[in-house]
Amino acid sequence: MKVSARNIFEGQVRELTLGAVNVEVSLDIGGGDTIVAIVTRNSVTSLGLAVGKPAVAIVKAPWVMVLGEDAPIRFSARNRLGGTVSAIQHGAINSEVSIRLPGGSEVHAVITNEAVAELGLAPGKPASALIKASHVILGVRD
Amino acid sequence: MKVSARNIFEGQVRELTLGAVNVEVSLDIGGGDTIVAIVTRNSVTSLGLAVGKPAVAIVKAPWVMVLGEDAPIRFSARNRLGGTVSAIQHGAINSEVSIRLPGGSEVHAVITNEAVAELGLAPGKPASALIKASHVILGVRD
Amino acid sequence: MKVSARNIFEGQVRELTLGAVNVEVSLDIGGGDTIVAIVTRNSVTSLGLAVGKPAVAIVKAPWVMVLGEDAPIRFSARNRLGGTVSAIQHGAINSEVSIRLPGGSEVHAVITNEAVAELGLAPGKPASALIKASHVILGVRD
Repeated sequence: MKVSARNIFEGQVRELTLGAVNVEVSLDIGGGDTIVAIVTRNSVTSLGLAVGKPAVAIVKAPWVMVLGEDAPIRFSARNRLGGTVSAIQHGAINSEVSIRLPGGSEVHAVITNEAVAELGLAPGKPASALIKASHVILGVRD
Repeated sequence: MKVSARNIFEGQVRELTLGAVNVEVSLDIGGGDTIVAIVTRNSVTSLGLAVGKPAVAIVKAPWVMVLGEDAPIRFSARNRLGGTVSAIQHGAINSEVSIRLPGGSEVHAVITNEAVAELGLAPGKPASALIKASHVILGVRD
Repeated sequence: MKVSARNIFEGQVRELTLGAVNVEVSLDIGGGDTIVAIVTRNSVTSLGLAVGKPAVAIVKAPWVMVLGEDAPIRFSARNRLGGTVSAIQHGAINSEVSIRLPGGSEVHAVITNEAVAELGLAPGKPASALIKASHVILGVRD
Protein backbone atom coordinates (compact mmCIF):
# COMPACT_ATOMS: atom_id res chain seq x y z
CA MET A 1 0.00 0.00 0.00
CA LYS A 2 1.19 3.47 -0.87
CA VAL A 3 1.31 5.08 2.57
CA SER A 4 4.35 6.57 4.29
CA ALA A 5 3.66 5.05 7.71
CA ARG A 6 6.00 2.29 8.89
CA ASN A 7 3.24 0.34 10.65
CA ILE A 8 0.50 -1.02 8.42
CA PHE A 9 -1.42 -3.92 9.92
CA GLU A 10 -3.80 -5.86 7.72
CA GLY A 11 -6.64 -7.38 9.66
CA GLN A 12 -10.31 -8.06 10.20
CA VAL A 13 -12.71 -6.16 12.42
CA ARG A 14 -13.38 -8.29 15.49
CA GLU A 15 -15.51 -5.96 17.57
CA LEU A 16 -17.10 -2.50 17.51
CA THR A 17 -17.89 -0.78 20.81
CA LEU A 18 -20.14 2.21 20.22
CA GLY A 19 -19.82 5.36 22.31
CA ALA A 20 -21.85 8.55 22.04
CA VAL A 21 -19.37 10.11 19.60
CA ASN A 22 -16.56 7.62 19.07
CA VAL A 23 -16.31 3.95 18.33
CA GLU A 24 -13.65 1.60 19.62
CA VAL A 25 -12.67 -0.81 16.85
CA SER A 26 -10.74 -4.02 17.64
CA LEU A 27 -8.83 -5.34 14.66
CA ASP A 28 -7.63 -8.93 14.57
CA ILE A 29 -4.23 -8.73 12.84
CA GLY A 30 -3.59 -12.47 12.85
CA GLY A 31 -1.81 -14.91 15.12
CA GLY A 32 -3.82 -13.76 18.10
CA ASP A 33 -2.54 -10.15 17.92
CA THR A 34 -5.04 -7.29 18.18
CA ILE A 35 -4.90 -3.52 17.54
CA VAL A 36 -7.52 -1.21 19.03
CA ALA A 37 -8.42 2.06 17.30
CA ILE A 38 -10.75 4.86 18.31
CA VAL A 39 -12.47 6.59 15.40
CA THR A 40 -15.61 8.67 14.99
CA ARG A 41 -19.03 7.19 14.28
CA ASN A 42 -18.90 9.05 10.96
CA SER A 43 -15.76 7.16 9.98
CA VAL A 44 -17.34 3.81 10.83
CA THR A 45 -20.20 4.66 8.50
CA SER A 46 -18.13 6.11 5.66
CA LEU A 47 -15.65 3.21 5.76
CA GLY A 48 -18.41 0.63 6.09
CA LEU A 49 -16.70 -1.00 9.07
CA ALA A 50 -18.45 -4.08 10.43
CA VAL A 51 -17.47 -7.24 12.27
CA GLY A 52 -15.62 -9.58 9.92
CA LYS A 53 -14.81 -6.91 7.33
CA PRO A 54 -11.16 -6.39 6.29
CA ALA A 55 -9.41 -3.18 7.34
CA VAL A 56 -5.90 -1.85 7.88
CA ALA A 57 -4.57 -0.13 10.98
CA ILE A 58 -1.92 2.51 10.31
CA VAL A 59 0.46 4.03 12.84
CA LYS A 60 3.50 6.23 12.23
CA ALA A 61 6.62 4.93 13.99
CA PRO A 62 7.23 8.15 16.02
CA TRP A 63 3.82 7.65 17.67
CA VAL A 64 4.90 4.34 19.19
CA MET A 65 6.50 4.21 22.65
CA VAL A 66 8.60 1.29 23.84
CA LEU A 67 8.58 -0.35 27.27
CA GLY A 68 11.43 -2.44 28.59
CA GLU A 69 11.08 -5.87 30.09
CA ASP A 70 10.24 -4.90 33.63
CA ALA A 71 7.68 -2.13 33.54
CA PRO A 72 5.32 -2.88 36.44
CA ILE A 73 2.97 -0.11 35.46
CA ARG A 74 -0.47 0.15 33.89
CA PHE A 75 -1.23 2.77 31.22
CA SER A 76 -4.20 4.67 29.84
CA ALA A 77 -3.04 3.70 26.33
CA ARG A 78 -5.15 0.80 25.03
CA ASN A 79 -2.52 -0.98 22.95
CA ARG A 80 0.28 -2.64 24.86
CA LEU A 81 1.83 -5.14 22.51
CA GLY A 82 4.40 -7.44 24.07
CA GLY A 83 7.03 -9.20 21.98
CA THR A 84 10.72 -9.53 21.25
CA VAL A 85 13.09 -6.97 19.74
CA SER A 86 13.79 -8.19 16.21
CA ALA A 87 15.96 -5.33 14.90
CA ILE A 88 17.42 -1.95 15.84
CA GLN A 89 18.61 0.59 13.28
CA HIS A 90 20.67 3.39 14.80
CA GLY A 91 20.64 6.94 13.48
CA ALA A 92 22.55 9.94 14.81
CA ILE A 93 19.87 10.80 17.37
CA ASN A 94 17.03 8.34 16.95
CA SER A 95 16.77 4.62 16.43
CA GLU A 96 14.11 2.53 14.81
CA VAL A 97 13.24 -0.41 17.04
CA SER A 98 11.31 -3.34 15.59
CA ILE A 99 9.38 -5.65 17.91
CA ARG A 100 8.05 -8.99 16.74
CA LEU A 101 4.71 -9.95 18.29
CA PRO A 102 3.80 -13.54 19.23
CA GLY A 103 1.48 -13.78 16.23
CA GLY A 104 4.22 -12.79 13.79
CA SER A 105 3.37 -9.13 13.16
CA GLU A 106 6.13 -6.57 13.60
CA VAL A 107 5.74 -3.15 15.20
CA HIS A 108 8.19 -0.33 14.43
CA ALA A 109 8.96 2.54 16.82
CA VAL A 110 11.25 5.54 16.48
CA ILE A 111 12.74 6.44 19.85
CA THR A 112 15.90 8.24 20.98
CA ASN A 113 19.24 6.44 21.16
CA GLU A 114 19.30 7.46 24.81
CA ALA A 115 16.08 5.51 25.42
CA VAL A 116 17.48 2.44 23.61
CA ALA A 117 20.44 2.50 26.01
CA GLU A 118 18.35 3.17 29.14
CA LEU A 119 15.94 0.35 28.33
CA GLY A 120 18.80 -2.00 27.44
CA LEU A 121 17.09 -2.90 24.17
CA ALA A 122 18.84 -5.41 21.90
CA PRO A 123 17.72 -8.04 19.41
CA GLY A 124 16.22 -11.00 21.24
CA LYS A 125 15.29 -9.00 24.36
CA PRO A 126 11.63 -8.72 25.43
CA ALA A 127 9.95 -5.34 24.91
CA SER A 128 6.47 -3.90 24.45
CA ALA A 129 5.05 -1.30 22.10
CA LEU A 130 2.61 1.20 23.59
CA ILE A 131 0.15 2.91 21.21
CA LYS A 132 -2.77 5.17 22.06
CA ALA A 133 -5.95 3.92 20.39
CA SER A 134 -6.69 7.47 19.21
CA HIS A 135 -3.37 7.50 17.30
CA VAL A 136 -4.38 4.59 15.09
CA ILE A 137 -5.79 5.44 11.65
CA LEU A 138 -8.04 2.87 10.02
CA GLY A 139 -8.21 2.33 6.28
CA VAL A 140 -10.34 0.26 3.93
CA ARG A 141 -9.32 -0.62 0.40
CA ASP A 142 -11.75 0.38 -2.32
CA MET B 1 3.94 33.49 14.48
CA LYS B 2 6.29 32.20 17.12
CA VAL B 3 5.45 28.50 17.15
CA SER B 4 7.79 25.60 16.40
CA ALA B 5 5.35 23.68 14.19
CA ARG B 6 6.12 23.53 10.47
CA ASN B 7 2.46 23.70 9.41
CA ILE B 8 0.63 26.87 10.33
CA PHE B 9 -2.49 27.52 8.25
CA GLU B 10 -4.18 30.89 8.53
CA GLY B 11 -7.88 30.69 7.81
CA GLN B 12 -11.45 31.45 8.67
CA VAL B 13 -13.93 29.21 10.46
CA ARG B 14 -16.38 27.88 7.89
CA GLU B 15 -18.41 25.47 9.97
CA LEU B 16 -18.79 24.15 13.52
CA THR B 17 -20.33 20.72 14.07
CA LEU B 18 -21.20 20.23 17.73
CA GLY B 19 -20.89 16.85 19.40
CA ALA B 20 -21.65 15.96 23.00
CA VAL B 21 -18.07 16.66 24.09
CA ASN B 22 -16.12 17.68 21.02
CA VAL B 23 -16.62 20.07 18.16
CA GLU B 24 -15.50 19.55 14.60
CA VAL B 25 -14.19 22.83 13.20
CA SER B 26 -13.76 23.33 9.43
CA LEU B 27 -11.24 26.02 8.61
CA ASP B 28 -11.19 27.63 5.16
CA ILE B 29 -7.47 28.17 4.47
CA GLY B 30 -7.95 29.88 1.12
CA GLY B 31 -8.02 28.81 -2.51
CA GLY B 32 -10.66 26.20 -1.78
CA ASP B 33 -8.50 24.25 0.70
CA THR B 34 -9.95 23.17 4.05
CA ILE B 35 -8.52 21.80 7.31
CA VAL B 36 -10.75 20.01 9.81
CA ALA B 37 -9.88 20.03 13.52
CA ILE B 38 -11.54 18.33 16.48
CA VAL B 39 -11.34 20.29 19.71
CA THR B 40 -13.31 20.32 22.96
CA ARG B 41 -16.41 22.46 23.50
CA ASN B 42 -14.43 24.26 26.19
CA SER B 43 -11.82 25.29 23.62
CA VAL B 44 -14.47 26.62 21.26
CA THR B 45 -15.77 28.82 24.07
CA SER B 46 -12.41 29.98 25.39
CA LEU B 47 -11.10 30.77 21.89
CA GLY B 48 -14.36 32.43 20.87
CA LEU B 49 -14.56 30.36 17.69
CA ALA B 50 -17.51 31.16 15.43
CA VAL B 51 -18.29 30.97 11.73
CA GLY B 52 -16.39 33.69 9.87
CA LYS B 53 -13.85 34.30 12.66
CA PRO B 54 -10.12 34.06 11.84
CA ALA B 55 -8.15 31.17 13.33
CA VAL B 56 -4.95 29.24 12.67
CA ALA B 57 -4.58 25.48 12.35
CA ILE B 58 -1.26 24.09 13.59
CA VAL B 59 0.19 20.66 12.85
CA LYS B 60 3.67 19.34 13.55
CA ALA B 61 5.29 17.81 10.47
CA PRO B 62 5.87 14.33 12.04
CA TRP B 63 2.10 13.94 12.46
CA VAL B 64 1.49 14.18 8.73
CA MET B 65 1.42 10.99 6.68
CA VAL B 66 1.94 10.98 2.92
CA LEU B 67 0.06 8.94 0.33
CA GLY B 68 1.40 8.22 -3.12
CA GLU B 69 -0.52 8.76 -6.31
CA ASP B 70 -2.39 5.51 -6.45
CA ALA B 71 -3.81 4.80 -3.00
CA PRO B 72 -7.26 3.31 -3.65
CA ILE B 73 -8.10 3.31 0.01
CA ARG B 74 -10.37 5.29 2.34
CA PHE B 75 -9.20 6.39 5.80
CA SER B 76 -10.68 7.29 9.16
CA ALA B 77 -8.52 10.43 9.16
CA ARG B 78 -10.62 13.46 8.20
CA ASN B 79 -7.97 15.46 6.35
CA ARG B 80 -6.79 14.06 3.04
CA LEU B 81 -5.17 16.91 1.17
CA GLY B 82 -4.25 16.16 -2.43
CA GLY B 83 -1.60 18.15 -4.27
CA THR B 84 1.81 18.07 -5.89
CA VAL B 85 5.20 17.48 -4.28
CA SER B 86 6.94 20.87 -4.27
CA ALA B 87 10.15 20.01 -2.41
CA ILE B 88 11.97 17.20 -0.63
CA GLN B 89 14.78 17.77 1.88
CA HIS B 90 16.73 14.63 2.70
CA GLY B 91 18.24 13.95 6.11
CA ALA B 92 20.19 10.90 7.24
CA ILE B 93 17.05 8.94 8.15
CA ASN B 94 14.07 11.19 7.55
CA SER B 95 13.03 13.57 4.81
CA GLU B 96 10.79 16.58 4.89
CA VAL B 97 8.30 16.40 2.04
CA SER B 98 6.39 19.53 1.02
CA ILE B 99 3.12 19.21 -0.87
CA ARG B 100 1.52 22.19 -2.57
CA LEU B 101 -2.29 22.14 -2.49
CA PRO B 102 -4.47 23.37 -5.37
CA GLY B 103 -5.33 26.54 -3.43
CA GLY B 104 -1.67 27.43 -2.93
CA SER B 105 -1.12 26.32 0.69
CA GLU B 106 1.81 24.04 1.40
CA VAL B 107 1.78 21.07 3.78
CA HIS B 108 5.00 19.72 5.29
CA ALA B 109 5.50 16.11 6.40
CA VAL B 110 8.45 14.35 7.98
CA ILE B 111 8.64 10.73 6.82
CA THR B 112 11.41 8.15 6.49
CA ASN B 113 13.73 8.13 3.47
CA GLU B 114 12.56 4.56 2.94
CA ALA B 115 8.97 5.79 2.52
CA VAL B 116 10.06 8.50 0.07
CA ALA B 117 11.66 5.79 -2.07
CA GLU B 118 8.76 3.33 -1.76
CA LEU B 119 6.20 5.98 -2.71
CA GLY B 120 8.39 7.24 -5.57
CA LEU B 121 8.01 10.81 -4.34
CA ALA B 122 9.74 13.55 -6.33
CA PRO B 123 9.06 17.23 -7.07
CA GLY B 124 6.17 17.51 -9.51
CA LYS B 125 4.64 14.14 -8.61
CA PRO B 126 1.11 13.96 -7.16
CA ALA B 127 0.81 13.10 -3.47
CA SER B 128 -1.60 13.57 -0.59
CA ALA B 129 -1.14 14.54 3.04
CA LEU B 130 -3.18 12.63 5.61
CA ILE B 131 -3.84 14.33 8.97
CA LYS B 132 -6.10 13.18 11.80
CA ALA B 133 -8.49 15.95 12.82
CA SER B 134 -7.62 15.33 16.47
CA HIS B 135 -3.95 16.11 15.70
CA VAL B 136 -4.75 19.65 14.61
CA ILE B 137 -4.34 22.42 17.21
CA LEU B 138 -6.35 25.60 16.69
CA GLY B 139 -5.12 29.03 17.72
CA VAL B 140 -6.59 32.50 17.81
CA ARG B 141 -4.50 35.67 17.95
CA ASP B 142 -5.23 38.01 20.82
CA MET C 1 10.82 3.84 34.88
CA LYS C 2 11.39 1.71 31.80
CA VAL C 3 9.60 3.74 29.14
CA SER C 4 11.12 5.28 26.00
CA ALA C 5 9.38 8.65 26.34
CA ARG C 6 11.55 11.64 27.28
CA ASN C 7 8.84 13.28 29.39
CA ILE C 8 7.75 11.36 32.46
CA PHE C 9 6.11 13.49 35.12
CA GLU C 10 5.46 11.98 38.54
CA GLY C 11 2.49 13.55 40.25
CA GLN C 12 -0.74 13.29 42.13
CA VAL C 13 -4.25 13.49 40.73
CA ARG C 14 -5.68 16.89 41.68
CA GLU C 15 -8.98 16.83 39.83
CA LEU C 16 -11.14 14.60 37.61
CA THR C 17 -13.67 16.23 35.28
CA LEU C 18 -16.07 13.62 33.92
CA GLY C 19 -17.44 13.84 30.41
CA ALA C 20 -19.83 11.45 28.68
CA VAL C 21 -16.98 9.36 27.28
CA ASN C 22 -13.75 10.95 28.38
CA VAL C 23 -12.32 12.27 31.61
CA GLU C 24 -10.03 15.24 31.99
CA VAL C 25 -7.41 14.47 34.61
CA SER C 26 -5.35 17.24 36.22
CA LEU C 27 -2.06 16.00 37.62
CA ASP C 28 -0.14 18.06 40.17
CA ILE C 29 3.51 17.51 39.22
CA GLY C 30 4.94 19.57 42.07
CA GLY C 31 6.07 23.15 42.58
CA GLY C 32 2.75 24.46 41.32
CA ASP C 33 3.08 22.85 37.86
CA THR C 34 0.14 20.93 36.38
CA ILE C 35 -0.34 18.56 33.44
CA VAL C 36 -3.81 17.90 32.03
CA ALA C 37 -4.59 14.59 30.30
CA ILE C 38 -7.72 13.37 28.56
CA VAL C 39 -8.34 9.64 28.89
CA THR C 40 -11.36 7.38 28.60
CA ARG C 41 -13.66 6.57 31.51
CA ASN C 42 -12.55 2.96 31.11
CA SER C 43 -8.96 3.98 31.75
CA VAL C 44 -9.90 5.90 34.88
CA THR C 45 -11.55 2.76 36.21
CA SER C 46 -8.86 0.29 35.19
CA LEU C 47 -6.06 2.51 36.55
CA GLY C 48 -8.02 3.29 39.71
CA LEU C 49 -7.45 7.04 39.28
CA ALA C 50 -8.86 9.20 42.07
CA VAL C 51 -8.06 12.56 43.62
CA GLY C 52 -4.88 12.32 45.68
CA LYS C 53 -3.66 9.09 44.06
CA PRO C 54 -0.16 9.02 42.51
CA ALA C 55 0.13 8.76 38.72
CA VAL C 56 2.63 9.53 35.98
CA ALA C 57 2.03 11.60 32.85
CA ILE C 58 4.01 10.47 29.82
CA VAL C 59 4.62 12.45 26.63
CA LYS C 60 7.01 11.72 23.76
CA ALA C 61 9.26 14.68 22.96
CA PRO C 62 8.20 14.93 19.26
CA TRP C 63 4.61 15.59 20.43
CA VAL C 64 5.63 18.78 22.25
CA MET C 65 5.52 22.12 20.43
CA VAL C 66 7.51 25.14 21.57
CA LEU C 67 6.36 28.75 21.69
CA GLY C 68 8.75 31.68 21.79
CA GLU C 69 8.57 34.54 24.25
CA ASP C 70 6.07 36.71 22.46
CA ALA C 71 3.24 34.51 21.24
CA PRO C 72 0.08 36.59 21.79
CA ILE C 73 -2.16 33.75 20.78
CA ARG C 74 -4.53 31.36 22.55
CA PHE C 75 -4.64 27.67 21.66
CA SER C 76 -7.04 24.74 21.81
CA ALA C 77 -4.26 22.69 23.44
CA ARG C 78 -4.86 22.46 27.21
CA ASN C 79 -1.24 22.39 28.35
CA ARG C 80 0.75 25.57 27.89
CA LEU C 81 3.71 25.33 30.20
CA GLY C 82 5.79 28.49 30.50
CA GLY C 83 9.40 28.41 31.65
CA THR C 84 13.00 29.01 30.68
CA VAL C 85 15.11 27.17 28.12
CA SER C 86 17.56 25.07 30.15
CA ALA C 87 19.35 23.18 27.36
CA ILE C 88 19.41 22.68 23.60
CA GLN C 89 20.99 19.66 21.93
CA HIS C 90 21.46 20.09 18.19
CA GLY C 91 21.18 17.22 15.73
CA ALA C 92 21.57 17.34 11.95
CA ILE C 93 17.91 18.25 11.38
CA ASN C 94 16.20 18.35 14.77
CA SER C 95 17.08 19.70 18.17
CA GLU C 96 15.95 18.66 21.59
CA VAL C 97 14.90 21.71 23.58
CA SER C 98 14.54 21.44 27.35
CA ILE C 99 12.39 23.95 29.22
CA ARG C 100 12.54 24.28 33.00
CA LEU C 101 9.17 25.11 34.59
CA PRO C 102 8.80 27.40 37.61
CA GLY C 103 8.14 24.41 39.87
CA GLY C 104 11.37 22.69 38.82
CA SER C 105 10.06 20.10 36.34
CA GLU C 106 11.68 19.96 32.92
CA VAL C 107 9.84 19.46 29.61
CA HIS C 108 11.65 18.11 26.55
CA ALA C 109 10.61 18.86 22.96
CA VAL C 110 12.05 17.73 19.64
CA ILE C 111 11.65 20.46 17.03
CA THR C 112 13.47 21.38 13.81
CA ASN C 113 16.71 23.36 13.90
CA GLU C 114 14.90 25.85 11.66
CA ALA C 115 12.31 26.43 14.40
CA VAL C 116 15.03 26.86 17.03
CA ALA C 117 16.53 29.64 14.90
CA GLU C 118 13.19 31.26 14.04
CA LEU C 119 12.11 31.34 17.67
CA GLY C 120 15.52 32.60 18.79
CA LEU C 121 15.70 29.88 21.44
CA ALA C 122 18.78 29.77 23.66
CA PRO C 123 19.53 28.72 27.24
CA GLY C 124 18.13 31.29 29.65
CA LYS C 125 15.47 32.59 27.22
CA PRO C 126 11.77 32.29 28.09
CA ALA C 127 9.75 29.69 26.16
CA SER C 128 6.60 27.63 26.55
CA ALA C 129 5.79 24.00 25.81
CA LEU C 130 2.43 23.28 24.19
CA ILE C 131 0.94 19.79 24.65
CA LYS C 132 -2.51 18.55 23.65
CA ALA C 133 -4.25 16.89 26.61
CA SER C 134 -5.21 13.95 24.38
CA HIS C 135 -1.50 13.28 23.70
CA VAL C 136 -0.72 12.65 27.35
CA ILE C 137 -0.63 9.02 28.46
CA LEU C 138 -1.25 8.32 32.11
CA GLY C 139 0.36 5.47 34.01
CA VAL C 140 0.02 3.99 37.47
CA ARG C 141 2.68 1.81 39.08
CA ASP C 142 1.53 -1.59 40.24
